[in-house]
Amino acid sequence: MAVPPNSQQEMRQRNLSRVLYAVAAAGPVSRASIAARIGLTRASVSTLVEELLRAGFLVELGPGRSGGVGRPGNALALTGMGPCGIGAEIGVDHLTVCAVDLGGRVRVREGDERPNGEAGADSVLRRLNSLLDRVVTDAGAAGLRPAGLAVAVPGLVSRSSTNVVRAPNLGWHDTDLAAHLAPAGPPLPLRVENEANFAALAELWLSGESTARRDFIHVSAEVGIGAGVVLDGELLRGTRGFAGELGHVPVQPDGPRCACGGSGCLEQYAGEAALLRAAGIAVRGAGGRTAALARLRARAEDGDEASLRALRRAGKALGIALTGAVNLLDPRAVLLGGALAGLAPWLLPPLERELRQRTAAPDAVPEVAVSAVGSDGPSLGAAHSVVRSVLDDPLPYAVAR
Amino acid sequence: MAVPPNSQQEMRQRNLSRVLYAVAAAGPVSRASIAARIGLTRASVSTLVEELLRAGFLVELGPGRSGGVGRPGNALALTGMGPCGIGAEIGVDHLTVCAVDLGGRVRVREGDERPNGEAGADSVLRRLNSLLDRVVTDAGAAGLRPAGLAVAVPGLVSRSSTNVVRAPNLGWHDTDLAAHLAPAGPPLPLRVENEANFAALAELWLSGESTARRDFIHVSAEVGIGAGVVLDGELLRGTRGFAGELGHVPVQPDGPRCACGGSGCLEQYAGEAALLRAAGIAVRGAGGRTAALARLRARAEDGDEASLRALRRAGKALGIALTGAVNLLDPRAVLLGGALAGLAPWLLPPLERELRQRTAAPDAVPEVAVSAVGSDGPSLGAAHSVVRSVLDDPLPYAVAR
Repeated sequence: MAVPPNSQQEMRQRNLSRVLYAVAAAGPVSRASIAARIGLTRASVSTLVEELLRAGFLVELGPGRSGGVGRPGNALALTGMGPCGIGAEIGVDHLTVCAVDLGGRVRVREGDERPNGEAGADSVLRRLNSLLDRVVTDAGAAGLRPAGLAVAVPGLVSRSSTNVVRAPNLGWHDTDLAAHLAPAGPPLPLRVENEANFAALAELWLSGESTARRDFIHVSAEVGIGAGVVLDGELLRGTRGFAGELGHVPVQPDGPRCACGGSGCLEQYAGEAALLRAAGIAVRGAGGRTAALARLRARAEDGDEASLRALRRAGKALGIALTGAVNLLDPRAVLLGGALAGLAPWLLPPLERELRQRTAAPDAVPEVAVSAVGSDGPSLGAAHSVVRSVLDDPLPYAVAR
Repeated sequence: MAVPPNSQQEMRQRNLSRVLYAVAAAGPVSRASIAARIGLTRASVSTLVEELLRAGFLVELGPGRSGGVGRPGNALALTGMGPCGIGAEIGVDHLTVCAVDLGGRVRVREGDERPNGEAGADSVLRRLNSLLDRVVTDAGAAGLRPAGLAVAVPGLVSRSSTNVVRAPNLGWHDTDLAAHLAPAGPPLPLRVENEANFAALAELWLSGESTARRDFIHVSAEVGIGAGVVLDGELLRGTRGFAGELGHVPVQPDGPRCACGGSGCLEQYAGEAALLRAAGIAVRGAGGRTAALARLRARAEDGDEASLRALRRAGKALGIALTGAVNLLDPRAVLLGGALAGLAPWLLPPLERELRQRTAAPDAVPEVAVSAVGSDGPSLGAAHSVVRSVLDDPLPYAVAR
């Protein structure tokens, strides 16, 4: 929970932040609309807005652009210059880096597709550093100044640390990213988080207020299966930062052994490797996973019985594991993201059947849908986490004048 | 998340509340200690304390009782008069009602032991009304004024409502307690909550700050198995208020059918009925459940193999369901409360074995222990929820002078 403000100074910071979020949510907007949105007087809002204009966070678009009724005020928007967030994802088969400005626009994006699983941390992080350098340079050329760097990884990250405790599909173990990542320019604050968490945050922040989705489980599958749990609009991180390990919820307690030490975990039925194996599809060479999944999809479309059976089994297992999660968490929605999203037409029917049969509370079966954020969810969530840290407490990022 | 204060008025309310919580946590305490604890100046604290003395929430104990070093200040304590919380539990076999004063002391307690499962809501709630009348009358005689009534029920309660959607072990369905409960005296605000939730809150509020248990799953078994999930010191309620249905987490997806519509739910292995059936122990007549559980315990102590096998199976099932919960939530502790607490010597070893083998993250196996709150947990949590609503925002409860 946020610490409540105890001083005038903290209250002013909070109110500056609320004005910025109001502009971020409403697009170009007048002072009067901001006042109405956040429940402060017009005079207070004007004072706050002047400060934010002076500090370079807001720009004035001139009269007549606020889109409202009545006398047009000068519409305000978030600057397209100044602080930006740098977000990165280290995937098993790809690297992605982007720069997002305060208005939430992706201004620079770079990526490469190469298998990272066998390359070793040093080599992967060296390539990531070059990508970061390019993105930071291009962002600078566009008038943007990185306010921080956030990195999504497919592994367990200790809470409030930059240490990847374990990323089995990368073969990493106790890898501290702070020791490896140093993009050009002044040092940046670094945040590291499980990719499923950043994907869930992207869903929370980018899917629009209208969806009213503030309680959901966002399933995020690449090679492993993770989940980001958002409750009351807050990411659930867990005591050590390890919450959301949906892939290791027991589905058949006496089922196949899992690398985690357990047996019958969800990943043994719905993980990519298990799914492809059950469908009799081999993974070959670089880019092999993507090609194999495309083959599975094509076979399912052709009605291939082995593929359909494997998908039904995976969907059922997802439904059983998610029933446990739904009975414990009572979310409004379950969202399927990552690699599994492309297989939703086959996975969702058995998944929803299990949920309907097994959810304990009547009328508490959550909505099940495909995630709105695409495959860039983790890097977008990462970049936006930096942007939001600026919007939360803008003054330290003000332009010196 | 608490709404941040946006005005002087809200900031004052928040600070009055912080002073009261500081006194509640530290026992008799000087103004200087309060200032040190909450990080306000001594002058601000003195002003706040004067207001709380005038309003009747604090009393001054005279010099020399603060227990600290240096010049003794006048020690302050919470009043033993004035507002109190009334808490009640509707159990399957009992009713409990208590009154708790602002200092957290139980001042009145009444209970009866009778099976409520077949009696029907009207009859049970009529008996509860008489108990409530006696407790409110006795509390009044002790100088206490009920500030609210909170009721724990073994069923699903819609969030922010007084409606029991379903309480299978009572045979209740859409029973709105507001329509039935009317203790003597002025009308009281009513809060209704699942018993597992109030038991978990009692654990959070009453087990002492020192335990640092602010992230835990509190398993609460009576006839059914529920859980209260506390994360970062906040109860997880879920979108509809139905979170914590641990009893219906699938343990063996193709296991025995459950009344919830699913199959192989935890309750089918570790619920009281399943446990007694597996041990070959029959439940007979009124008070039969308690007697049967005592018999199970006695037989286990004597080394009866059927009883030990039933307990091992239940402990293992608890461990499987809790592994799912632990992998999703990453809590610091798992606490066993309710009827299962008495069987902990037999349940915990297999439970912990499953947790150790199946928890995905290394070093993330939570502490497993027996709950510190006894069988009165639900009614105590209920009463304290009222007390805390007074401490949160005291002024509406001030004594008129």
